[in-house]
Amino acid sequence: METSGNGVTCGDMKRAEIVSQIHQKKSVLCVGLDTDLTKIPSHLLQEEDPVFAFNKAIIDATQEFAVSYKINTAFYEAQGLKGWQSLERTLAYIPRNIFTIADAKRGDIGNTSTQYAKTFFETYEFDSVTIAPYMGKDSVAPFLEFRDKWGIVLGITSNEGSLDFQHLLVDGRPLYEHVLERVASWGTPENIMFVVGATRKEQLAHVRSLCPDHFFLIPGVGAQGGDVDTVCRNTLNSDAGVLINVSRGVIYAGNDEHFAEAAAAAARQYQKEMSVYL
Amino acid sequence: METSGNGVTCGDMKRAEIVSQIHQKKSVLCVGLDTDLTKIPSHLLQEEDPVFAFNKAIIDATQEFAVSYKINTAFYEAQGLKGWQSLERTLAYIPRNIFTIADAKRGDIGNTSTQYAKTFFETYEFDSVTIAPYMGKDSVAPFLEFRDKWGIVLGITSNEGSLDFQHLLVDGRPLYEHVLERVASWGTPENIMFVVGATRKEQLAHVRSLCPDHFFLIPGVGAQGGDVDTVCRNTLNSDAGVLINVSRGVIYAGNDEHFAEAAAAAARQYQKEMSVYL
Repeated sequence: METSGNGVTCGDMKRAEIVSQIHQKKSVLCVGLDTDLTKIPSHLLQEEDPVFAFNKAIIDATQEFAVSYKINTAFYEAQGLKGWQSLERTLAYIPRNIFTIADAKRGDIGNTSTQYAKTFFETYEFDSVTIAPYMGKDSVAPFLEFRDKWGIVLGITSNEGSLDFQHLLVDGRPLYEHVLERVASWGTPENIMFVVGATRKEQLAHVRSLCPDHFFLIPGVGAQGGDVDTVCRNTLNSDAGVLINVSRGVIYAGNDEHFAEAAAAAARQYQKEMSVYL
Repeated sequence: METSGNGVTCGDMKRAEIVSQIHQKKSVLCVGLDTDLTKIPSHLLQEEDPVFAFNKAIIDATQEFAVSYKINTAFYEAQGLKGWQSLERTLAYIPRNIFTIADAKRGDIGNTSTQYAKTFFETYEFDSVTIAPYMGKDSVAPFLEFRDKWGIVLGITSNEGSLDFQHLLVDGRPLYEHVLERVASWGTPENIMFVVGATRKEQLAHVRSLCPDHFFLIPGVGAQGGDVDTVCRNTLNSDAGVLINVSRGVIYAGNDEHFAEAAAAAARQYQKEMSVYL
């Protein structure tokens, strides 16, 4: 961990620092910046960089309640170079003690995964990147070679299509269990997290029993139907061990000049629900 | 399919046009542009855009023998904005009757996959993009909604890690068979191809029997150990039905001022081996 002259940490984040943020803010809220030009308040479209203008206002409004920001890279890539500039500005604007996630779902053969890891850990200084596991160990390992950086590997996702392959039975157990078990053996709870998009309590509790120590990034709360209470009751461990992502439910809570206040109110409400358990 | 004033087609490619290129050139060669600044001839580093200068020379030297170019997006992303500019220039330089692949291994929940599809089919006008299947149908379907564009879904990959999950047995059959079967049911051989990185002849023949009509994108030839004869003998169908990718074996065939001639010679040799079967 490097520290700059003014005491602001930069570039990497150890587990203890994530946990410290969680305890300080009594929150496990991750705000998902899936910023879509067609959905942001129209008055922002006059700005030179409307996506950054929106994100900046959202970050200002929610950083008191959020311990992580997740940038969904697809929404930025789709805008071409302008989008990558918005991404870069947004990342630079996020306070460095807040955990950053490049939600990019990357993964390829070893030499290519190394390039993806360089993209998100060096060219852009994210703390973590999400990874698709289908190509196996050498597609995941390059992300784990960076000190104090994290690979967040898909375990169970929250979409309907998760039923197509993730729940197929292999030796009597769903594929996702094999993925969790095998991927966990490639690293440690200090450099691997899992995406766990379960919404049913039995499944959440079951996944926690399989991976007692790992952090879970939990999508699907809000617009996708999950709820904070069920997640917290069934997945919290002694380090909290979860980041609950809400995207649309926070960033599009309002759609007029007061969108930032609406986002702050939504984030505060989520934080309040979470605080009971922390 | 749009046609510009000078008769050059632009933007999309139907299966018949791919097949026409294959018969015209007696080749199924796809050249993989995994262009790495640390591996290109050093005299190019003085150029304003060394990656594009390299790719331009490679395209000039190999287009007579290649029916497809595959851009491995990781190598471009890792260079930040400069890299995306090199990618854009490279794509624009590829003759429009040659099939283009964004080798990006994307895939996410529906609204996010839609953004990725827009990225590669609209913001950048690729003919196709590679897709990771772990998240299931709604992660693949958005790519199939674009007319005359292709989703190239991972079936079997050529890396060591392919053994971790793709070959796990589900109801007595390896996971990749379930992936091929289920993904095939979401589209047609006119908009879905599969990545089939097998190198053993039994496996190639088996996969062809499972998917008689689909095009296969076959990596792993050259640096990764596969050979043209084995692939052609076991996978060609009446439309050829394969694109054999060679990356390092062509683009890094030479490493001095004569690199383009060396790449041409390597591509010509691959084309010659392929022509016997076409």
